[in-house]
Amino acid sequence: MDERIRKKTDSRLARIEGQVKGIRKMVEVDRYCIDILTQISAVISALKGVEEIVMEHHLHTCVAHAMQKEDPEEKQLKIIEVMDVFKRFS
Amino acid sequence: MDERIRKKTDSRLARIEGQVKGIRKMVEVDRYCIDILTQISAVISALKGVEEIVMEHHLHTCVAHAMQKEDPEEKQLKIIEVMDVFKRFS
Amino acid sequence: MDERIRKKTDSRLARIEGQVKGIRKMVEVDRYCIDILTQISAVISALKGVEEIVMEHHLHTCVAHAMQKEDPEEKQLKIIEVMDVFKRFS
Amino acid sequence: MDERIRKKTDSRLARIEGQVKGIRKMVEVDRYCIDILTQISAVISALKGVEEIVMEHHLHTCVAHAMQKEDPEEKQLKIIEVMDVFKRFS
Repeated sequence: MDERIRKKTDSRLARIEGQVKGIRKMVEVDRYCIDILTQISAVISALKGVEEIVMEHHLHTCVAHAMQKEDPEEKQLKIIEVMDVFKRFS
Repeated sequence: MDERIRKKTDSRLARIEGQVKGIRKMVEVDRYCIDILTQISAVISALKGVEEIVMEHHLHTCVAHAMQKEDPEEKQLKIIEVMDVFKRFS
Repeated sequence: MDERIRKKTDSRLARIEGQVKGIRKMVEVDRYCIDILTQISAVISALKGVEEIVMEHHLHTCVAHAMQKEDPEEKQLKIIEVMDVFKRFS
Repeated sequence: MDERIRKKTDSRLARIEGQVKGIRKMVEVDRYCIDILTQISAVISALKGVEEIVMEHHLHTCVAHAMQKEDPEEKQLKIIEVMDVFKRFS
């Protein structure tokens, strides 16, 4: 990853780490379940945002690169990898 | 799409169409809500299966093709399209 | 279900059935994969809309009713059923 | 929450916090994008597991309790809250 994307990704993950700590605190002080669920949903959305950044970067670099080569096995492998992420997502 | 994938996709969609008809019947004869919800989930899973077939085909053909060309705008466009599907999925 | 909810549900399902037919047509005439994927996503969203209507109705009727009874097994069963739908959804 | 559920929830969240830290490390040392995406998916699954625990607890306690009361506004509010979580999930 280039420096800009790495920093962006890390700052989002740092924020997510803080949010998870916050949810643990909410559980500890017995906050209302619905508020806890709302926070968990927020963290899941934030993680999906990170996934999108990493996936977009991956398509622009590794996948684009493999597609330009002549090696059909390499191409096939990259598509299988992307489809695996896609299936886990859906 | 080649003939084999088109047929596979159409036969799955034909089955999904039948399942939706079946759910309408369930609603009409007042079947238990949970049974209706189970059937709706089954149809959503089936549609995701079709999405996976179409997406995999798209990566193997249009995306792979665009990546081999020199046109950076064309590449960028294909990645944006794939990411849009990805975001709607997640 | 009362008549109003049944009609609402059926008219949505009828529309979904039409959309699935439309996707089959798109596949038949070899429309662009991304357009097909966009339509499939639209149908999935529409089905989730129906799920929400049915689930809300179920909570207001069967679940609310079971909770008012004294039978702990009946309550437990209703919660398990709702959680099963919830898990399939997530 | 009773002590058993609180402990279970906290130990899962502690593990998730560790996993997020691990992903930050993976980004820092420039691990392969697909491996990072696999880990993010694992954290999302783990968070959904916590959501299920909290939701099930909520149905057994707050929702069950509200349903036994005569207050229709209270019942309506609980159902709206559950449906909101449900919609965010789907």
